[in-house]
Amino acid sequence: MSTKTISVGQDILSAAKQAAFELRADFTQRGIFIVNIVSSPGAGKTSLLEATARYWANQNRMSVLVGDLATDRDAQRLSPLAPTVQLTTGGACHLEMPLIRKGLSELGEIQTDFLFIENIGNLVCPASHDLGEHLRVVVLSTTEGDDKPGKYPKMFRTSQVLVITKSDLLPYVPFSVEAAVADARLIQPNLQSVTVCARSGDGIPEWCRLLEDAREQMLATQNA
Amino acid sequence: MSTKTISVGQDILSAAKQAAFELRADFTQRGIFIVNIVSSPGAGKTSLLEATARYWANQNRMSVLVGDLATDRDAQRLSPLAPTVQLTTGGACHLEMPLIRKGLSELGEIQTDFLFIENIGNLVCPASHDLGEHLRVVVLSTTEGDDKPGKYPKMFRTSQVLVITKSDLLPYVPFSVEAAVADARLIQPNLQSVTVCARSGDGIPEWCRLLEDAREQMLATQNA
Repeated sequence: MSTKTISVGQDILSAAKQAAFELRADFTQRGIFIVNIVSSPGAGKTSLLEATARYWANQNRMSVLVGDLATDRDAQRLSPLAPTVQLTTGGACHLEMPLIRKGLSELGEIQTDFLFIENIGNLVCPASHDLGEHLRVVVLSTTEGDDKPGKYPKMFRTSQVLVITKSDLLPYVPFSVEAAVADARLIQPNLQSVTVCARSGDGIPEWCRLLEDAREQMLATQNA
Repeated sequence: MSTKTISVGQDILSAAKQAAFELRADFTQRGIFIVNIVSSPGAGKTSLLEATARYWANQNRMSVLVGDLATDRDAQRLSPLAPTVQLTTGGACHLEMPLIRKGLSELGEIQTDFLFIENIGNLVCPASHDLGEHLRVVVLSTTEGDDKPGKYPKMFRTSQVLVITKSDLLPYVPFSVEAAVADARLIQPNLQSVTVCARSGDGIPEWCRLLEDAREQMLATQNA
């Protein structure tokens, strides 16, 4: 490829970084905490958001942008619980800023405390794209195996929180929570972790508290 | 982007297609059946290959190229059972022909009936890359949800076989094998399907028979 092409690529990348930076600054000022949720397909991102919305009910307001290659299946699940816009990439393996902006304009003038971005189910590509989030959360289900962090290092290195889902299946699968967390912390020593079961609600209060604390910290920094 | 850049992209793509075509023709002539296995992370590709190697033992010879972003964890599991080469992409989300060629040269002069390519755990990007395989097999575990085919349509549209894994967990998860297969066949009506549990061996004979039949068909076409 020519030098010219490479420089075009860099321009696009830095424009995306700039857009992410501006979104984060804007939402920080408005007191809205943005959470980018990433995982493999079927790890339980949507179920986690359903459980979060049910737990918070009237405590905290949340809105959701949910990404998929195709279908609006996830938005159909989440819409009864929170203002939700489905983003379909038409095949692309991750979300990018222009689609986030489009989703935000579809959401309209939101009054919310938390904006969740449910990324495409993919442990690789979304790792490389800052979407303006304050917190990146990687979700790993107990059925995927505790060897995954080392095999998908960038996703775990760029996340601040690890949520281990489907704890109800622990008796039936060869998965050690301790081993998974230890493997992830080899890559990202400061990774916080919480283990949940979205179906039973186990661990959901701890997960929600972690989010509330993170938002409080953002507000405190903002007002400092 | 300039017209020039686009044409370079097309050249690379058609070179990759040509390389895949040549590999398939070469291996067909040598009687080696190539299977490209794709799935989400942790769906059980490696466990399926372990069970396949154990079941076949002295019946069929198999070799494996196993892809990961990082680590040689999968090759460590498979090497005791079959000649295996680990391919690490260093972050790339799918395997491509140059790495396949490198892996084959590392395998050396293989005498084998089946060559398995275990792709990167990713339900999106590997769909777009022909690796010279005779058969593309998409693996979906019962813990991922029966709504996944419609959400990741290209992967299911470009596959010929669907293997549903972790059937031992069916009593504990909201997953209907019939619904998953029906959803996949909306996209790819000719998709064959088989349900297995690699840990117990349930369904492994049917899976292996399916592979043997497919190879027989290739040999018959070759000798026609």
